[in-house]
Amino acid sequence: MHNQTLILIQCQDAVGLVAVIARVIAKHQLNIVTMREYVDEENRKFFLRVVCSGLPAEASLLQQELLTHLPPQAFVKINPARQKKLVVLVTKEHHCLADILVRHFFKTLNADVMAVIGNYDCLKDFTEKFDIPYHHISHENKTREAFEEELAEQISVYQPDYIVLAKFMRILSPKFVALFANKLINIHHSFLPAFIGANPYRQAYKRGVKIIGATAHYVTNDLDEGPIIVQRTKSINHSYDVPNLVTAGKEIEKAVLSHAIQLLTEDRVMLQGNKTIVFE
Amino acid sequence: MHNQTLILIQCQDAVGLVAVIARVIAKHQLNIVTMREYVDEENRKFFLRVVCSGLPAEASLLQQELLTHLPPQAFVKINPARQKKLVVLVTKEHHCLADILVRHFFKTLNADVMAVIGNYDCLKDFTEKFDIPYHHISHENKTREAFEEELAEQISVYQPDYIVLAKFMRILSPKFVALFANKLINIHHSFLPAFIGANPYRQAYKRGVKIIGATAHYVTNDLDEGPIIVQRTKSINHSYDVPNLVTAGKEIEKAVLSHAIQLLTEDRVMLQGNKTIVFE
Amino acid sequence: MHNQTLILIQCQDAVGLVAVIARVIAKHQLNIVTMREYVDEENRKFFLRVVCSGLPAEASLLQQELLTHLPPQAFVKINPARQKKLVVLVTKEHHCLADILVRHFFKTLNADVMAVIGNYDCLKDFTEKFDIPYHHISHENKTREAFEEELAEQISVYQPDYIVLAKFMRILSPKFVALFANKLINIHHSFLPAFIGANPYRQAYKRGVKIIGATAHYVTNDLDEGPIIVQRTKSINHSYDVPNLVTAGKEIEKAVLSHAIQLLTEDRVMLQGNKTIVFE
Amino acid sequence: MHNQTLILIQCQDAVGLVAVIARVIAKHQLNIVTMREYVDEENRKFFLRVVCSGLPAEASLLQQELLTHLPPQAFVKINPARQKKLVVLVTKEHHCLADILVRHFFKTLNADVMAVIGNYDCLKDFTEKFDIPYHHISHENKTREAFEEELAEQISVYQPDYIVLAKFMRILSPKFVALFANKLINIHHSFLPAFIGANPYRQAYKRGVKIIGATAHYVTNDLDEGPIIVQRTKSINHSYDVPNLVTAGKEIEKAVLSHAIQLLTEDRVMLQGNKTIVFE
Repeated sequence: MHNQTLILIQCQDAVGLVAVIARVIAKHQLNIVTMREYVDEENRKFFLRVVCSGLPAEASLLQQELLTHLPPQAFVKINPARQKKLVVLVTKEHHCLADILVRHFFKTLNADVMAVIGNYDCLKDFTEKFDIPYHHISHENKTREAFEEELAEQISVYQPDYIVLAKFMRILSPKFVALFANKLINIHHSFLPAFIGANPYRQAYKRGVKIIGATAHYVTNDLDEGPIIVQRTKSINHSYDVPNLVTAGKEIEKAVLSHAIQLLTEDRVMLQGNKTIVFE
Repeated sequence: MHNQTLILIQCQDAVGLVAVIARVIAKHQLNIVTMREYVDEENRKFFLRVVCSGLPAEASLLQQELLTHLPPQAFVKINPARQKKLVVLVTKEHHCLADILVRHFFKTLNADVMAVIGNYDCLKDFTEKFDIPYHHISHENKTREAFEEELAEQISVYQPDYIVLAKFMRILSPKFVALFANKLINIHHSFLPAFIGANPYRQAYKRGVKIIGATAHYVTNDLDEGPIIVQRTKSINHSYDVPNLVTAGKEIEKAVLSHAIQLLTEDRVMLQGNKTIVFE
Repeated sequence: MHNQTLILIQCQDAVGLVAVIARVIAKHQLNIVTMREYVDEENRKFFLRVVCSGLPAEASLLQQELLTHLPPQAFVKINPARQKKLVVLVTKEHHCLADILVRHFFKTLNADVMAVIGNYDCLKDFTEKFDIPYHHISHENKTREAFEEELAEQISVYQPDYIVLAKFMRILSPKFVALFANKLINIHHSFLPAFIGANPYRQAYKRGVKIIGATAHYVTNDLDEGPIIVQRTKSINHSYDVPNLVTAGKEIEKAVLSHAIQLLTEDRVMLQGNKTIVFE
Repeated sequence: MHNQTLILIQCQDAVGLVAVIARVIAKHQLNIVTMREYVDEENRKFFLRVVCSGLPAEASLLQQELLTHLPPQAFVKINPARQKKLVVLVTKEHHCLADILVRHFFKTLNADVMAVIGNYDCLKDFTEKFDIPYHHISHENKTREAFEEELAEQISVYQPDYIVLAKFMRILSPKFVALFANKLINIHHSFLPAFIGANPYRQAYKRGVKIIGATAHYVTNDLDEGPIIVQRTKSINHSYDVPNLVTAGKEIEKAVLSHAIQLLTEDRVMLQGNKTIVFE
């Protein structure tokens, strides 16, 4: 890992992009280990993730040269921070948070959990077992604006790469979302676009579905409409009442969120409009 | 199989139902092989499917006695026809139909395919290879009413237990649905309630989902809102365009429909409001 | 839950068992909520798990009466302890242990973790965060006999219902296994019977399989040959090296073990020879 | 598809391979659409599958030039036949064959089924419905050598790219296997390496597994030990007897074989020792 170079490129599509990129990389004495690319033909966009062995003598020169050969407004990132910084937002449910904290504790998360912020304090003790700061910011007796200001201020202290809504049950204002654009990751407890909004398991029960699921997605202004990163489902049957659905669903939720975090921290996710390209 | 008795019971819930039913069954010299029951506590309903070894000396007497001991308006069915009669409705896509006809041909369908009716004739040759009558009833240049009348007339000739809409792409009127209440089975090419209506794969593509699915359900007046029998999903990624989604989806569609038909023909599905109880 | 009676029965198969059992249950004023039964026709054995609402006035009388009406040597258990006691054995890997301790901490495990015993001390700090005693019993510089004696002694202090081998990497002697017959539950990191023994992920890598899996099973004298409780698999591809397989496998291992523990603590597992009957 | 060039490369690994290949491709006025590569670091081998838009003016020149720049003994294939030729071998079971013939009939197989050869005649009528020649070559009253000679002769008439053993229940001699090296594709009815050999479902039943599966693999001299192409599993429970396992297994078998055929006909499978690289 330490002698590898990760290059991410996103630009207008054009003829010969792989050739020119590979040539520049070779010129800098890097050897391609894995290369994944995708062309969104509808939008004429090119996406590339390449891992090379070796480190460039001058990363900025490599970036410069790549930009010179790519279409205008290309996005080139070389060796983005390997260890992302996360702030986790929670309400009362523990399962996603616990999964994250355990992985962090045993150094399998591939990210630093800087802090946990909860609008209740019920997860404080658990969080502090792992020597992670827990900030209790209640939403009670506050306007949404005031609550979100406090929240934003606390988050900003940590300069996180991602803010993980690990079952954070408050709807966020467009202003807040804009403040942390492309950094807010939510776990929704249904296979979106089914069961948008509140109480998806109750909705699922009422509809009599035979599968339940969970969705990890970027947060945008439209509730539960942001770009999807990971989704998974599980078969259920008529004998599941709402509490059974909730219990079964939690297993999927934590697995899905955990998978999404891993993809993000390994820089495997790129955004294109309301969709993601995921190089797994 | 031939020396077995299948008993289906659906009634208001009450204390001691299993005991009283088991006692009546024992009195008739039948031995319970498998018994599956479900109590819908919300609606206070009791559902039972029991398979016994042996045949009752007098099935009508057994039924009579069960009814005497069950709450009023109980539904009791003893040894419903083992080999259900099916009529299959198609448009242009072959995959679900072919799956059904092959199983029928090799006698693994557990049902008789009486006829196939298509609003195009493109599946005629294929159907007739298997010596199944194919009726071409075009919807063109006809009012929906006229088309459906013709359809209903042809279906009625065969007195089917179920009418399987194996990718039949016409929306049916409430009148038609009422005519064949609880007999119309549809395969919808999405994991309902997501992507109701037309072009679910295009909708899925636009939304950027990471799973696709299919749903077999009873047809009711509300489009794609009928009781769900079987659902299944499959993981996909950003590289799937609409034709790829359609191709991958067909595999799920035929598996899901086939599974639903099997459950129905083995009398494993019971209806309760807009839901199904499935004794697998 | 508190007003429910759980009855487990295991006996030779005979005509009319369900009827007679249901009659005795009804006589004791209990109402059957769910009943699951299975007949192993090969071995002529009958298995039943029934949940009733209500509590018997005299459980011992109910048991007596059931035994009177069942074939000789029947096994009848009424309301076994709802909260099972567990002792967890570990070596160095944390993932299964952490999953168990988190569930225990948040009271979703449905069991009491009495203690953790490790042949290394590296999981001590983590365990003690949750106020669970950790006993470090090293196997080093000891005969297997001496090591196992120490282990057995420490386990016996807690009188556990189950001893969970949560990635405990020592092979146990027949003597030890006999001491805790039907109480030792292991998680094996392959889909048994494939890749019995050491290094299953290396074996999987060498064989070039396209799936990996995990198996939770009872421990018997034959290594990895005990009755299987839960198995699950996951698709992989050629790009997984051994460390990738290990990482991916851990997710399955902890999910499978966790599922098995849930089934055991809810008394849903019955043993028949080298197999399990699992009433899910 | 028609204006695309598919290039397959397999060679010793070396520094700068992607760059040099991309440069040669660009020189020939081809634009890379998708590129998948894999480096087997253990064996220092490089594998590449690249799809370009456009057709080379001179394919042989392109190949020549690629070979010039690649390590010695490189394997380079440009636009291998798009429509592979298949011969299907069967015994008595129809499910895999039917799946193949239906796909062939509706032109979704991406291959030509030249003929079906059976050691019984029970699938003759079905095959001929689809205007595919069926050759009945009985193994009865013949030495294996004589039987295989007849078989080989008949197969050779069609010069197939692949010989698909669609539940062909005869063990093939090393001589026969050598004759059609890397062309024999088998579907084995278990998740290999579990349950090698005869009656895997009976073995699975006896072992009490909770999953069953199927494996599509190349045939080599070692029974059920050839390189695996596709594997899939399905959860089962104690209530499945052997016939139930067989029935459930057939659904997986046909899906797995069908998937493997698709991968092979799209040139997505490369061989490396006893393993496959599959570029899905």
